[in-house]
Amino acid sequence: MSKANVVSKSSRSERKRRAILEAATKVFLQHGFLGTSMDEVAARAEVSKQTVYKQFASKEALFIGIVQSMTDAAGAQVQRDMGDPQDAEQLAAELLAYAERQLAIVMTPRLMQLRRIVIGEAGRFPQLGKALYDGGPGRAIKGLASTFTRWADRGLLVVDKPAVAAEHFNWLVMGEAVNRAMLLGDEGIPGPAALRRRAADAVHVFLAAYGNRGA
Amino acid sequence: MSKANVVSKSSRSERKRRAILEAATKVFLQHGFLGTSMDEVAARAEVSKQTVYKQFASKEALFIGIVQSMTDAAGAQVQRDMGDPQDAEQLAAELLAYAERQLAIVMTPRLMQLRRIVIGEAGRFPQLGKALYDGGPGRAIKGLASTFTRWADRGLLVVDKPAVAAEHFNWLVMGEAVNRAMLLGDEGIPGPAALRRRAADAVHVFLAAYGNRGA
Repeated sequence: MSKANVVSKSSRSERKRRAILEAATKVFLQHGFLGTSMDEVAARAEVSKQTVYKQFASKEALFIGIVQSMTDAAGAQVQRDMGDPQDAEQLAAELLAYAERQLAIVMTPRLMQLRRIVIGEAGRFPQLGKALYDGGPGRAIKGLASTFTRWADRGLLVVDKPAVAAEHFNWLVMGEAVNRAMLLGDEGIPGPAALRRRAADAVHVFLAAYGNRGA
Repeated sequence: MSKANVVSKSSRSERKRRAILEAATKVFLQHGFLGTSMDEVAARAEVSKQTVYKQFASKEALFIGIVQSMTDAAGAQVQRDMGDPQDAEQLAAELLAYAERQLAIVMTPRLMQLRRIVIGEAGRFPQLGKALYDGGPGRAIKGLASTFTRWADRGLLVVDKPAVAAEHFNWLVMGEAVNRAMLLGDEGIPGPAALRRRAADAVHVFLAAYGNRGA
């Protein structure tokens, strides 16, 4: 097989994989794990069921693929652009921009519905929950912990336990909004102005505890 | 009917209601909402199906009864004994005791499994999620908001928005622990020593932001 053929075959396969993921995401979010059939996914993606199984060995593997692809996309958007502030004012602005971005990107009906389904299935399929944890809050908290360590080294924060500080920031920002969305449905998702107020309040509390007042 | 008869009939009915709730709780937590049948509940409670329906008009009503009874019991234990501290030291001790109590009472496999099931069903049965929100985090946050207002009036806290301060305290204490339990299953529930550390860290951050440093 020529090199061009290999490339075009692999990009065809990648295109099919994306079409399957896209179709499967819609079906899963609408019908949940138990309510989704591989037949429906194949029909929606306009491929054969055999093609679906060639890309994803099982319905579980397909759902894990969906969780990873949705959380990866959201995580990449949230984590981008963590700069290095020079003073307390820039630090506050950086934290606020992050908090606003995280709320805007995560508090969407699609991601909240994914999270509801995954939690509902966590007992039966622990791998689903682990994939969402690792790609979602776990990744966010790890990223923050490493950023906070850097900022503490530069004298902007006073942080003994970076992972705990990162958890605190994450849940000051996300806690009530995610909880409402989980239990009260999409109507529980706060509007843009309320989300911005939440971001500002969270940054204020975080800096009172972890800001270096000498800086 | 004599008064004694009325009393004994109502206490018999109350006893049956409790037996049904207890049996139904076990079945629901094990099999989820869709996997639970009223036949199985009746058999486990050793009453007729007719008796079950006399107490609870539908499976939905029964599950709401379970959510209310479980969250009421937990909420009453968490909320007890909120005293009025006299100084900053007593204030910190009071907050720490509350946080430790809340983590110990809420972070149990039973309540976490109830929460997982309710979240998984939130789309289909919004009333379930509302019952858990109202009886669980909603009640805790309302209680804290009113306590924080009192403590601010006594000069111990500086609180502009008591409801926001209450949300912050609640999620500083509960956020990461609940999230892990939701996504990583019972193995995600931190052990007693880790829960006590979480409580202490949360109180520290809360007081840095909301403590009255002049007090």
